[in-house]
Amino acid sequence: MKVKLQEDVLKDQNLSANFNREHFNTSKTLVVNMMSSPGAGKTTLLEETIKLLVDQYTVAVIEGDLATDRDAERLRALGVQTVQINTVGGCHLDARMIAKKIPEFDLEEIDILFIENIGNLVCPSGYDLGQHYKVAVLSVPEGNDKIPKYPVMFRRTDMTIINKIDLLPYVPFDLEEAESDLQFINPSAKFQALSAKTGEGLDRWITWLKEAYQQCTKQ
Amino acid sequence: MKVKLQEDVLKDQNLSANFNREHFNTSKTLVVNMMSSPGAGKTTLLEETIKLLVDQYTVAVIEGDLATDRDAERLRALGVQTVQINTVGGCHLDARMIAKKIPEFDLEEIDILFIENIGNLVCPSGYDLGQHYKVAVLSVPEGNDKIPKYPVMFRRTDMTIINKIDLLPYVPFDLEEAESDLQFINPSAKFQALSAKTGEGLDRWITWLKEAYQQCTKQ
Repeated sequence: MKVKLQEDVLKDQNLSANFNREHFNTSKTLVVNMMSSPGAGKTTLLEETIKLLVDQYTVAVIEGDLATDRDAERLRALGVQTVQINTVGGCHLDARMIAKKIPEFDLEEIDILFIENIGNLVCPSGYDLGQHYKVAVLSVPEGNDKIPKYPVMFRRTDMTIINKIDLLPYVPFDLEEAESDLQFINPSAKFQALSAKTGEGLDRWITWLKEAYQQCTKQ
Repeated sequence: MKVKLQEDVLKDQNLSANFNREHFNTSKTLVVNMMSSPGAGKTTLLEETIKLLVDQYTVAVIEGDLATDRDAERLRALGVQTVQINTVGGCHLDARMIAKKIPEFDLEEIDILFIENIGNLVCPSGYDLGQHYKVAVLSVPEGNDKIPKYPVMFRRTDMTIINKIDLLPYVPFDLEEAESDLQFINPSAKFQALSAKTGEGLDRWITWLKEAYQQCTKQ
């Protein structure tokens, strides 16, 4: 599938989001926008997720960073196409940046595209990238008070993943309170707790992704 | 000391920063701007720091948050004046917000004023608040790759504190690499590792604050 970019698309965030969405829907590529604070474990979660998907699905990644391509290198090591966006200090990805990268992918061949956003619990939440789902990752050491303290992020996401549950014995984090805070802020959001490091809880996340992919190909 | 705000000060970030700095210098109040990702432990570090300072110093806090005054309540419980700034979604404090809050303090009576910035490793770094020192807090669970990955923050700070060293046995974090990465990005920056939770290493941080206060009152 050839993708032609028009200049007016690149001028406007919302036009670009719709442009991206149209392409993702046409090619039946499930697109998941992953957001979190720095160090919540998005890249490690993606590594483990990709390992569990690559036998059945063609996966690709758009990797957002302020600087360096360290995370992209980690994902390329798994043999998946990974396209880097360096924002050079910018605190979020926007739909125009994604639109510019679409021609680098053969979307028809890609089943699931993950977008790893800039590590930031504030800025990325306001930007529609044309994705099917927005997923927020919050890690146990950050504390469960981050859901009410950063409501804009958690209000706008389809799922919140609590990562690093292997650290629950060492740091205070109330999983039940986190779930009920999320329920209050965003009643329709999914809530999953897991550890990308130990693999605990990953199966539920993989099941959710497979179902989301099926939904996406049915449209 | 009465502080009169002029409208042009509030219109301009840099004018406001200089306005703030002038007031802080006149009253000989040491001002430290604390920045980090969400959940790196700024508030806990401030709690433990304040407990170790209040016998000798009058301490106050400006507490930045997107929403809620949970952190301000934690600090008020220690008996220190804490003024809340809610940015309603804004990802950093700026000098104008600080300038507007200055009249709420009797600066002549305050020895050390901490500004707890919004939890964000990107946006706050670009804003001079008129402080004497900028301190970045990075926590062990975030991983030591965050220094090269978020260079803008670490390049612009006077000190980087590595917090939560009590978690070093449970998560991969290379303290030496962190120190040498910081050295490379910002050779003049101080580097301290501590655990606000266990108290390990806090003495060095308190010593640094006391010396910084002495410098500030000498000017």
